[in-house]
Formats: sequence, structure tokens, C-alpha cells
Amino acid sequence: MSVSSARPSATPSSTSISAPSSVTAHSSVPAAVPAGLPVTEVTTGPISGSEKVYLPVPGTTATYPVRRIHLTNGEHLDVYDTSGPYTEGTQDAPAAVDVRAGLARTRASWAVPDASPTQRGAARTQLAWAQAGVVTDEMRYVAAREGVDVELVRAEVARGRAVIPANRNHPESEPMIIGKAFAVKINANIGNSAVTSSIEEEVEKMVWAARWGADTLMDLSTGKQIHETREWILRNSPIPVGTVPIYQALEKVKGDPAALTWEVYRDTVIEQAEQGVDYMTVHAGVLLRYVPLTARRVTGIVSRGGSIMAAWCLAHHRESFLYEHFTELCEILARYDVTFSLGDGLRPGSIADANDAAQLAELRTLGELTQVAKSYGVQVMIEGPGHVPMHKIAENVRLEEEWCDEAPFYTLGPLATDIAPAYDHITSAIGAAMIAQAGTAMLCYVTPKEHLGLPDRDDVKVGVITYKIAAHSADLAKGHPGAQARDDALSTARFEFRWTDQFNLALDPDTARAFHDETLPAEPAKTAHFCSMCGPKFCSMRISADVRAYAEERGLTSVEAIEAGMAQKSEEFADAGGRVYLPVAPA
Amino acid sequence: MSVSSARPSATPSSTSISAPSSVTAHSSVPAAVPAGLPVTEVTTGPISGSEKVYLPVPGTTATYPVRRIHLTNGEHLDVYDTSGPYTEGTQDAPAAVDVRAGLARTRASWAVPDASPTQRGAARTQLAWAQAGVVTDEMRYVAAREGVDVELVRAEVARGRAVIPANRNHPESEPMIIGKAFAVKINANIGNSAVTSSIEEEVEKMVWAARWGADTLMDLSTGKQIHETREWILRNSPIPVGTVPIYQALEKVKGDPAALTWEVYRDTVIEQAEQGVDYMTVHAGVLLRYVPLTARRVTGIVSRGGSIMAAWCLAHHRESFLYEHFTELCEILARYDVTFSLGDGLRPGSIADANDAAQLAELRTLGELTQVAKSYGVQVMIEGPGHVPMHKIAENVRLEEEWCDEAPFYTLGPLATDIAPAYDHITSAIGAAMIAQAGTAMLCYVTPKEHLGLPDRDDVKVGVITYKIAAHSADLAKGHPGAQARDDALSTARFEFRWTDQFNLALDPDTARAFHDETLPAEPAKTAHFCSMCGPKFCSMRISADVRAYAEERGLTSVEAIEAGMAQKSEEFADAGGRVYLPVAPA
Repeated sequence: MSVSSARPSATPSSTSISAPSSVTAHSSVPAAVPAGLPVTEVTTGPISGSEKVYLPVPGTTATYPVRRIHLTNGEHLDVYDTSGPYTEGTQDAPAAVDVRAGLARTRASWAVPDASPTQRGAARTQLAWAQAGVVTDEMRYVAAREGVDVELVRAEVARGRAVIPANRNHPESEPMIIGKAFAVKINANIGNSAVTSSIEEEVEKMVWAARWGADTLMDLSTGKQIHETREWILRNSPIPVGTVPIYQALEKVKGDPAALTWEVYRDTVIEQAEQGVDYMTVHAGVLLRYVPLTARRVTGIVSRGGSIMAAWCLAHHRESFLYEHFTELCEILARYDVTFSLGDGLRPGSIADANDAAQLAELRTLGELTQVAKSYGVQVMIEGPGHVPMHKIAENVRLEEEWCDEAPFYTLGPLATDIAPAYDHITSAIGAAMIAQAGTAMLCYVTPKEHLGLPDRDDVKVGVITYKIAAHSADLAKGHPGAQARDDALSTARFEFRWTDQFNLALDPDTARAFHDETLPAEPAKTAHFCSMCGPKFCSMRISADVRAYAEERGLTSVEAIEAGMAQKSEEFADAGGRVYLPVAPA
Repeated sequence: MSVSSARPSATPSSTSISAPSSVTAHSSVPAAVPAGLPVTEVTTGPISGSEKVYLPVPGTTATYPVRRIHLTNGEHLDVYDTSGPYTEGTQDAPAAVDVRAGLARTRASWAVPDASPTQRGAARTQLAWAQAGVVTDEMRYVAAREGVDVELVRAEVARGRAVIPANRNHPESEPMIIGKAFAVKINANIGNSAVTSSIEEEVEKMVWAARWGADTLMDLSTGKQIHETREWILRNSPIPVGTVPIYQALEKVKGDPAALTWEVYRDTVIEQAEQGVDYMTVHAGVLLRYVPLTARRVTGIVSRGGSIMAAWCLAHHRESFLYEHFTELCEILARYDVTFSLGDGLRPGSIADANDAAQLAELRTLGELTQVAKSYGVQVMIEGPGHVPMHKIAENVRLEEEWCDEAPFYTLGPLATDIAPAYDHITSAIGAAMIAQAGTAMLCYVTPKEHLGLPDRDDVKVGVITYKIAAHSADLAKGHPGAQARDDALSTARFEFRWTDQFNLALDPDTARAFHDETLPAEPAKTAHFCSMCGPKFCSMRISADVRAYAEERGLTSVEAIEAGMAQKSEEFADAGGRVYLPVAPA
């Protein structure tokens, strides 16, 4: 069984899906919700050993969520929580969530400051407000959530070094911040394609991804019912939702890149912004003159959006309409406070193509477009590769920060090798941890199905947990405040044989418990002072406890005192030089 | 299902296990093979798409194995192979291996040079010979296998910067080399414990680990039939086998550390050396005076061997008998050319304890012991942690190289965070890739069961594949000659839609194929120019091919020519400054 299905997933309560009542209220585009959508389930109920708690956001009437992990020694640990109301309630009485009604539109009641002047007229965006010195409720919310000073949040957003993706038409979302000064975030991609998947599967994937820790979600649907799928996801998503509008635009022209026009694309962006999409990937850096630079690559252009635009440029032998109409795009996004995710359409798709001329030429153009977007008050992040060997990873961060004015970097992995399809969540977690340590603000997950197929529910969980590992490892390496508290709590529980606490403090309590129970299933084993690795006769952890006991019996409370208590013996060796064996010749 | 059991493992041919006929011939200790050992199976037959080929070792009559991956375009790629004769033959007619007879004793016929003088008498070891300028067949074998000059091998071994673990009583082994100048190696731990597993399971785990790429194997059995289990493994193992003799010694005194004596330990080492164990972990750096340094750790002493010795030191309040008798140990190991793996008995077991006083004090002592061992002609490698946050990883390599005279570093992970039990193959692969890039020569794998239970056959495969990823990623980052050839071959196959080649070039062809078939099962899909990610209507890879076609139609063969072909158009943008949008104010 896979780590994600080592035991049945947290028992879901059944909730039937049909049309969200709030669809039309939220979208200027008729949602045309499919009639008689089959009943499905979304996963609800708390994560094992945890309680959903809401804490006040200072200076507002709002509250923010934390997951409180209760320990058997009476202590508890609060951890950052992305799972939304789905994890409220108890195992016996899980949250009652009506996906037909959608989540509460909490942010709709929050104060919206007046428009603030920017270089180019009035923009009502977190960036514009931050630059004007205005502190929004969203800024206060993320400051409380991150445990930092609200002024740090405002300053980083104003500086363009952090973004708060929060379309005003997605009031169901719980604000979060993406920037190198804050905890590293992870994104989960879902979405059906022309050949697989369904709306109800995608909604559950969203709930499931958020449950295990996804900070944002991208809906990359390319098949039928793109609008409806997105509507269901947005109305029920507690985390920001991103899209790649060119995908839907391509569907509108029946999949022929040459048939794309600025007008079709523009209308698609407006349609999605109206629905509440929080950030959009725009491949405006794929310029006509860069396309030849990919001709000799091992894997050419691997970005779907990038190759669509390259195809259009080639077909018309004209410059990209995304580049030519970029300022109009900025005006549209500014109206909703949609955040740009400037796509790396020419990212390397193999180790051989890493950091090549095509990739770096596009990155320079993304830096230019970053300036344009910010001048319109639009928040910006920059997408990064891809496939990069370890020794070329830091260079990606250095150049992005230099050329793109430190806009938050948002990378896909990168994969540190090409030779392990079916394990690319691992090949990419290596690169992801390293690039996050170097300054990347958000990591887009990769699942075991990368390059082979579309992820199912289990793959989504494995991808999210794997990327939580990479992000947290980077937080530790960056000395992020409080990051090590969870490591220390889990390791202390391990040392004290508090097995249940060890499981519940884990990123995936269910699988940790299941693996333990495979060899020592009995409940008493949960308190046993040994495990299946060494068996009952001898345990190294127990010996360590003896070391402490030895010291305590003798009232030796400090390392120094314990050493002193052993001084005589150790001096004998010191006198002998501690190297007595070197000069001695064998018999 | 897990990635390791996505489909039934390569169909094994059945081979019944009973007493290896060669047992008594190989061991001065009666093997006492258990009567009526149940019939079991070991996995045989080639890895998907591959053929086992033997190539001549220049200057000898020997041949060395490679796995030849045949591609559908008529090309092939030879890769380093550790799987032994088990992968000979064809899927229809797999190798006939008689585990009762054991593998051929190939090395028994190789030339054994005369003893060479060392500082301390005559030692017949690879180190002593290398220092005397003698090139052995083992050196020629590993040079051919690594594709390097034999003089590099001799020089690195003589320098003590590489080891060739090859006990003369393990003639079934295929020599391999461990050192920073060569490909990064990985070790797989197996072994039963007091509460689980059996001999036949362990033999199959050995065959299975070698099949997927383990370069060495450690038998960490702690339960019953330790001697018999080891005998079965050694007689059938094509890869070097390591042990931790203190484990068996502890069993001999009924699990009471205080009852251990030098004599019991010494006799155990001789028994195992006689059997053919290639390298032994010896925790001789756990000194009485270091024990107090662990009293205030979050996780104390987590090394089983380390805590056994700490317990003995505390019980007797005497210095470690391993340290006091270290020179006698050197004389024993030199007789068989058993390699020391100086154990890090005080390695950190948590992020909080990384690089602490206890760990570093022991490392200094291991450096001292390295000098002693080499003066006796004994090869040495140094074991390393453990649990280390990313920013403290490089420091471990720097200090080991400085204090231990660059003896090959052999690390367990390290885990980059403590918070993901059940995913510690991943938390540790991140640290393993980074520490290998920094110079670690061999990585000891960690399986998903780490901290929770003993690995089963599936866990062993996941651990091995995960560590092949970490090791190969480091080879790429170090620019190891030829390392990128496999990445390039796989990525080219991917770009050219040669699905079958992409699977067969993968570290785990079976799982890659299985994942692909979950969404596009039909055989024609193996040649389809699209996949389930984008569907048949549009494919980014296909667009890339169009870019090439565009250039070829116009006879534009070089990037320069293609650019020239588009020069006029691009000039228009160049003239406009390429930044025309910045100054334009919106309407």
C-alpha cells in the first residue's frame, strides 16, 4: 500500500454535491452547473489527535485557524493550518459542510480601504495599500497567522518581496502570504484533462490537498466543464486558487494555438477574475525571438503555456499578444487584486537544458514585466524551474532576485535528476528543499505521477506531504522563528516513548501509526519502552535514559557536574595522552 | 499501492533454499544450518528492457558486469550493475541460481600478491598493497567498473581516501570501491530482530536490494540464528557485506551490556571475519568521558552500538574495551582485509542534537583511531549522522575530512527534519543528496519504516531507489564523468515519445510503466505522441517538435541561423527598445 493509503483515509462524512447556491451571486458568467451531478463525498473531521481552534486577529473582529495537537503529557502544540472548516468537529461528530452552499464568505464583511494612488492611477490592491502605508485586515490576518509583526508584512508587500493573493471575489479564502521573510509555502496542482477525471473528484482533491497542508491550489483543468469545475473549487476553497487562463482560452478555440486572439484571452481572464481566481500564470515572457533558442534543447519547450505561445508566435510570426497587451492585462488584474504569477514558459525540462540561454532570456523579460505590473499596483510572483542539477540551483535564485527585484520566487521542484519517473516527488523534493533554503518563497509540488499521468487522490497527498517536508526543512535551515518547535516536540515524544504523540505530531499521523502497527499492532505497544527495531530485550533509547538516571542518582544536574563526577577516571586517560595505543607495537 | 508494489515485482523463479553446500568450506565455525528450512524464493531474471553483459577487466582474466538497456531506436546504454548473477538470462528463461550451493567463488582464483611491509609488519590488504605500489586484480576490476584509470584507484586507496571492502573469505563478491573520487555508493540495511523476520526473508531482501542497486549490504540481525542468517547471505551475496559485531556479542551474553567482555567481542569478530564479512562497524569512539555529554540531549544516544558501549562504560566505570583493545582489533582485521567502518555511536538522533559536543568529540577520536588502523594496513571508513538540518550538513563533511584524514565518509541520511515519520526515506534523501554533493562517499539508506518498524521487501526497494536518486543527483552535481548520460538518454526518449525507452531507462521501470498504464493502458499509447497530462488535442512536446520543423523547413540548422531567419521581426522589437510598454500610460 502507498504511504497515503496505508490505512483508509480519515473517515469522511458524506456530503452530496449539486449546484452551489452561491454560484450566480459570485460570477457574472452563468455557472451552468451540470444538472444531477452525482452525489460525492468530501473528507471532513479533524486530523488524528488534533483540534481545530480559532484565535483572534489583533485589531480586527476576525479569527485565524490553528491546528492544536494535544499531547498525552498534557501539553499541546499549535501548528499552522490550511485545512479550512473541513477539519472542525470531532472524529465522532465531524464538521457538517454543505458544498452546495459553499464556504462562508468571511472576507466579504472586512473593511476595504479607499483606493490608493499608484504611479498609474488608483489601484485597490494589497500592494497599492501597503505602498500607501495602509494596513489591511488581510495584512493583520497573515501577520497573526505567521506570528510576526504586522509592519513586517506591510513593508514586505510594499517592497514587492511578498504577495497576499486575495481576489475580492474569493471571500471564502483565508488570507496567506508568500515571501522569503515568511514560512515557505507549497502549492498543489489539480485539474482534469481531456482524457480523465471529473468535477467531484477535483473538489475532493482540493479539500484533500488543503487538509494535508497545501497553502495554495492551482486548477489546471484542460478538459470539459472548466468553468464549472473552477466554480465548485472556488466556492469551497479556504486557500487561494490559481489558474493558467491560456488553458481555457485554448479550449475556446478548439485546441488550435494559431486560432488564439488577445480578445479571447482577455475575456477568459475577466471571466476567471470575476469568479474569484486569486493568481494567474501568464507566460508573457515567451518572446518570438526567444523561440529559436529552444530548437537545440534536449527537451525543447515543456511548459504547456509556453509552448502554446511559442506555437502562436511561429504561426503568425508575430510577437506574443500577452507581451503586447501586458499593460491592459495589468489594468484588469488590478481591478480584482489578482496576483500575477509570471510563468516560465521556457523553463528547462531536463538536466541538460538547465540554466540555458532560453531560460535566462525569458527571466530577464519577466524582470521587465515585474516593473510594469508593480507600476500598476499589481502583485507579482515569478515562476521558476523545473529540472536543475544541485550545483546550478542557487544561481536560479540569485538571478531571479537580481533581475526581478526580489519578487517572490515560485518554483516547480526543481528535479535534481531525470532518471526516476514514478519517484519525481522525491527527485524534486531534493531540489525544492535546496532552492527554498536559497530563498524561494513557494514550492509547487510534484507528485509520483509526474511525467506519467494525472495524480489521483493518493498521489495528491504524497505530493503535499513530500513538499511540506521540503518547505519545513528549508524553514529549519533558514532559522525561521519557531520552526524547530515541532521537531523538538516530536523528538522528545520519541525519546520518551510517547508513541501516540509521535504519531500525532507527524505530518501524516495515520500512516506513521499504520507502519508502527504492522510490526507491533497491540495497543500496549503504544506505551511500550521498546519497538520492533531492537525488540524488548534491549533498547538504545532506554540506555540513554539510564545515562540520565546515573547522573540524577548522584545528584549531578549539569553536564559539567557529571563530567566532574567522572573526572578521576577520565584523567587517567588524559594523563596517558588518550593516544596510548598509537606508539605501542604489536606483539 | 506503494511505488514499490504498483505491479507484482519482477516475476521471480522459484529456488528452494536449504543448507549451502559451501558453508563448512567457508567457515571455521560450524554453520549449524537450521534443518528443514522452508522452501522459499529469490527473485531472478533481468530487469525490464535490460540484458546482463560481462565485459573484460584489462590485465586480468576476469570480467565485470554491466546492465545493458536496449532502446527501441537501436541504441543501448550500459549502466553500473550490482545485481549479480540473479539478473542473468531472459524473462522467459531467467538465471538458474542454486542458493544451496551459493554463488561462484570467483575471486578465490585471483592472484594474491605477497604481503607488503607496512609501518607495523606485513599486512595483506588492499591498503598495504596500494601503498607498496602493487596493483591488485581487485583494483583493476573496480577501475574497469568505474571507467577510470587503475592508477587513480591505487592512489586513492593508498592515500586512504578510498576503500575496497573485500574479505578474502568472501570470494563470491564483485569488488567495488568507496571514495569521493568515484561514483557515490549506497548501502542497504537488512536483518531480523528479536520480534520479527526469518532467514529466508533476509536472503531474498539481500537479492532484492542488490537487484535495485544497493552497492553494499549490512546484516543487522539481532535475533536468533544470527550466524546462520549471515552465512546464507554471505554465500549468496555479490555485494560486500557489513555487520555490527557488538550486536551478536550482546546476544551471546543474553542481551546484558554489562556482561560483555573483550574476549566475547574478539571471538565474535574472528567468527564473522572467518565467514567473510567485508566491513565491520566498530563504535570504538564512544569513550567513558563522552557519555556525560549526551545527558542533556533531546534524544540522548540513538546508536544501538553506541548505547551498548555507553551502558558498559557506565556499568563498570571503565574505558571502552573497544578503545583499549583497538590495536588487537586492527591485527585481526588486517589478517582478512576486513575494512573498519568506525561507527558514530554518539550521532545526533534529532535536529536539536546535530553537530553537538558529544558528536564532535567522538569524531575527533575516530580521527585518531583512523591513524592507528591505517598504520596496521587496515582500510577505514567513517560513519556519519543521522539527523542534521540543511545548514549544518556541509560542516560535517569538512570536519570529517580534516580530522579523519579524508577517510571515506559513510553517512546515514542525514534526515533534514524530524517531523515526518513514515516518510523518512524522503526527509533523509534531501540530506543525503546534499552531504554526498559535499563529499560523502557512501550513503546508508533509510526506508519509510525508519523509527517505526523493520522494513519489508517493498520498503527495501523504496529505500534503495530513493538513495539511488540521492547518489545520482550528487554525481551530477559533482560532474562525475558520464553521470549525465542516463539523464540525457531518458530525457531524449521522453521528448521523442519513446515511452518504452523512458520506462526502461528509469531506476524503476516496472513502477514507471504501471503509473503510465493507470491512465493510458493501451499498448498503442506506448507510441502515442501525447499523454494523459494534456490529452490528444494538444501536446507541448509536439509543439517543441514543430519549432524544430519550422527551422528545418527553412534550412536553418544552427541557433544562429534560426535567429537570423527571424532577425527582421525581432529587430522591430529591438528598435522599439523591447520595453515600449513601460512608458505608456493607460487610457
